[in-house]
Amino acid sequence: MPSLTTFEDVAAAAKRLNGHANRTPVMTSRALNDDLGAHCFFKCENLQRMGAFKFRGAFNALSLLSDAQRKAGVITFSSGNHAQAVALAAKLLGVKATIVMPKDAPAAKMAATRGYGGNVVLYDRYKEDREQIARGLAEKGGLALIPPYDHHDVIAGQGTAAKELIEETGGLDALFVPLGGGGLLAGSALSAKALAPACAVYGVEPAAGDDGRRSFHSGAIVHIDPPRTIADGAQTQHLGNLTFPIIRRDVTDVITATDAELIAGMRFFAERMKLLVEPTGCLGFAGARQMCASLAGKRIGVILSGGNVDIDRLGALLQT
Amino acid sequence: MPSLTTFEDVAAAAKRLNGHANRTPVMTSRALNDDLGAHCFFKCENLQRMGAFKFRGAFNALSLLSDAQRKAGVITFSSGNHAQAVALAAKLLGVKATIVMPKDAPAAKMAATRGYGGNVVLYDRYKEDREQIARGLAEKGGLALIPPYDHHDVIAGQGTAAKELIEETGGLDALFVPLGGGGLLAGSALSAKALAPACAVYGVEPAAGDDGRRSFHSGAIVHIDPPRTIADGAQTQHLGNLTFPIIRRDVTDVITATDAELIAGMRFFAERMKLLVEPTGCLGFAGARQMCASLAGKRIGVILSGGNVDIDRLGALLQT
Repeated sequence: MPSLTTFEDVAAAAKRLNGHANRTPVMTSRALNDDLGAHCFFKCENLQRMGAFKFRGAFNALSLLSDAQRKAGVITFSSGNHAQAVALAAKLLGVKATIVMPKDAPAAKMAATRGYGGNVVLYDRYKEDREQIARGLAEKGGLALIPPYDHHDVIAGQGTAAKELIEETGGLDALFVPLGGGGLLAGSALSAKALAPACAVYGVEPAAGDDGRRSFHSGAIVHIDPPRTIADGAQTQHLGNLTFPIIRRDVTDVITATDAELIAGMRFFAERMKLLVEPTGCLGFAGARQMCASLAGKRIGVILSGGNVDIDRLGALLQT
Repeated sequence: MPSLTTFEDVAAAAKRLNGHANRTPVMTSRALNDDLGAHCFFKCENLQRMGAFKFRGAFNALSLLSDAQRKAGVITFSSGNHAQAVALAAKLLGVKATIVMPKDAPAAKMAATRGYGGNVVLYDRYKEDREQIARGLAEKGGLALIPPYDHHDVIAGQGTAAKELIEETGGLDALFVPLGGGGLLAGSALSAKALAPACAVYGVEPAAGDDGRRSFHSGAIVHIDPPRTIADGAQTQHLGNLTFPIIRRDVTDVITATDAELIAGMRFFAERMKLLVEPTGCLGFAGARQMCASLAGKRIGVILSGGNVDIDRLGALLQT
């Protein structure tokens, strides 16, 4: 069993991110609270640098590289937001970054990754193994591999969003977190257990790819084929060796949301809160909606993980 | 010459609004600032209650009604946001509200006005005179008329957004404000002159309806036909008797923006800042963009006046 990331790692990451990551706002909707009969606090990581929480983990991990590693450069594989995050963090720290991206990643994410100076290598997510490609290139070029979630420093960085949310709201009864590979959920659970021990923590993943739920309930990491869902940031095939044990220990339950629920969430955020949230970013809210009957009068935290959705795609999704 | 609204009225309105209006966030974009070589501060009134700055003026005006006036009810005419604002303020203060709205107002604005309990009366904006209709109904029912901009307490309320912006940023070199009938611009100019006397203040109106620019330069209020522009919140036909003298005295210049510039703004806010801003709300940013060559190194305030745009309409506009 590997040694696990701790809340002390999260707290150290928060110090490293200070002045580099945005301390994103926590927003509320009076109309929603009246509707739910609860107090819902949205941590707006769609307003984070490069548009998603991923900047936190990437910047933390790259900050901890040795001089020799920085000189050689970094490589990662990502469906999009982690790609942009590594590219931006690398640019800020003067490091060369190579990014292995699926060729059907949203155009905005690909353009932004290249815009930050990242060297993009494309692959077919339904036929090729991105980890294999990245590991091959890493070995060949002596590059440090920064995987999107199964990495201590990435998990620690991602946990800082929930830490800020809990500190700002002064305690929560429940916290809903989008779940792909588990970096955000594991980090969030560490912060919740340390700062609000009675807070229930829920991971919410796409119904089309419920490996997280099955892993959580069976006690062993379940591998699946790439799920077909609009939540492109949560099309992961399995939890990580470092994220799973934390999730299993500190998370209350893992639940799922359908694409239709994510679309309803995007519409709610756009129409009522004037915020663009990407499909993956709506997972937490969809989970909170499902459980609202049992949350009356409670203080509910929801992490909006990102806002990187092509405008044309948003229009198309909302018309379905 | 009527007596003019003063900054003291704005400061008194701010006290009245405290705890009722949102103190909306001021947002920035590092990428934009790098691009412009300036510091741009966006006052996000799209995140105000009911989605626009109009709540400030309406709540201030309704707060100042006598008991007899509250009992009789209020009436207004509006292309949308002032309608919602009066309806919501009336609901909060326990007053009945009748709203005269154009029948082609955005569906979201009409639905929200009715949702707040407003009694909606429709008219044809290209054939009928809304002020005449409203005045007729007001007389018949003994209702207090709360016009959308030409009213002391409305102007004073609208000025509180710029007051907050200047207080939070600690001073500005230039301020760009959407211009329709001039309530927001007049109120903003009062705050700027009091709190940042050297700050240049620009009103920005749709190019299709440049009555404000012509009035400002000629010294007399110019009346025009209803302009055809996507900026539905600025389809006014003339400045007001109370707003014009303040604008003429305290504003630096009035400039115009095309619909294409407003669409480019909406795309920028959605893609880069994850914010929904309605066409009218992009007027200030379009003006700032036009003048950016002369604003290098400056601190620029921009009021995003509202975010009430139908999602389907947004999609259609961004595809043009």
